[in-house]
Amino acid sequence: MARQERAVRTRRAVLEAAAEVFAEHGYAAATVADILARAGVTKGALYFHFDSKEALAKGVLEEQAAHYLLPQELKLQEWVDSGLTLAHRLPQDAMLRAGARLSTDLRGLEEYGTAFPLWTQFSATVLIEAQRRGEVLPHVDPKETAELMVSAFHGVQLYSQVTTGWADVEQRVCVLFRHVLPTIAAPALLSRIDITPDRGARVVAEAKRIQAPPLTVS
Amino acid sequence: MARQERAVRTRRAVLEAAAEVFAEHGYAAATVADILARAGVTKGALYFHFDSKEALAKGVLEEQAAHYLLPQELKLQEWVDSGLTLAHRLPQDAMLRAGARLSTDLRGLEEYGTAFPLWTQFSATVLIEAQRRGEVLPHVDPKETAELMVSAFHGVQLYSQVTTGWADVEQRVCVLFRHVLPTIAAPALLSRIDITPDRGARVVAEAKRIQAPPLTVS
Repeated sequence: MARQERAVRTRRAVLEAAAEVFAEHGYAAATVADILARAGVTKGALYFHFDSKEALAKGVLEEQAAHYLLPQELKLQEWVDSGLTLAHRLPQDAMLRAGARLSTDLRGLEEYGTAFPLWTQFSATVLIEAQRRGEVLPHVDPKETAELMVSAFHGVQLYSQVTTGWADVEQRVCVLFRHVLPTIAAPALLSRIDITPDRGARVVAEAKRIQAPPLTVS
Repeated sequence: MARQERAVRTRRAVLEAAAEVFAEHGYAAATVADILARAGVTKGALYFHFDSKEALAKGVLEEQAAHYLLPQELKLQEWVDSGLTLAHRLPQDAMLRAGARLSTDLRGLEEYGTAFPLWTQFSATVLIEAQRRGEVLPHVDPKETAELMVSAFHGVQLYSQVTTGWADVEQRVCVLFRHVLPTIAAPALLSRIDITPDRGARVVAEAKRIQAPPLTVS
């Protein structure tokens, strides 16, 4: 294995261990020693990539990318899919669970920031393109709607976590989209957009099957 | 001062001190000693009313009542007002700030619960009456919409806290209502509902002026 490939794998193993520890214990209670033990790498290897707990949290937050999405005929379907695939993956994916937890930990936020800007930028980019295509009504401010949806999604997943351990998160995120979409979408399109609780699972399965690359924010 | 009145005042002083400490430091970092020092009461008086930090958190969460609301011609206006008055009071009221913070502290939640059920019940009660009057469309499930709005509100205030220290929370809560109301309200009523950022301040000022009693969940 080439040195560079080994470094990439080590970095990844450290980030995954950090995500598990942050998701489980929160930022304040997590220690670099816990993460080191979970990662199974040397202390030197960990510190080569991340020189502090803060750097580990930042690294985890930077990994909240929009994986497992597929291009759709309607941009608004891609927008809905970004929320529903995230809701589907959240309970199973330590990186996302850690991102959610780190983003609500008020004591840590000043140290490492939040994943909010990343998600807002992605959501706004999709909405701007949807509006350009006439799918989103002209009066809508894409940035405003994007910020609303990222913050509302966050509250909805937290409510789901607290009340059912995320068992109903996909259902609750569907409710969110069903309440907002009629306000922003061109009416004729509404019936063509799939907002069902198992939509996220179906899109993720198909994206994995065809090994789709992650959609990135342009 | 009668003994009972003194007890009520002491209890109130302790709760307000607890709210300030929880709002500032979060549940885990708060100590009963901090709260005692802030309340200016004896240790015996504090423990007479609250026998643990957990009991203090529960007491603060029970105080998240719907104060400073006024009966309106449209029930949906009362529903909007419940969100906008809360958004207006949140930055200034330690009891509400503590409620928001305690409700996102995942490590504490198992000990003391959340204020979510209280808010959801209030919101659903108002929506059910609005639907009975024909203000809310027949297909709407009031409990589902209430849970959505309580959780979305929570995410929106958290986003506002993180990004601007709550400076834009009233604006952001207006954006939330403007995105949801067209989906649930009878269309003819929409233009009659006031959703402006200073609405909360106006309602609170008027309720204080006429010393309106708190609206309670029936």
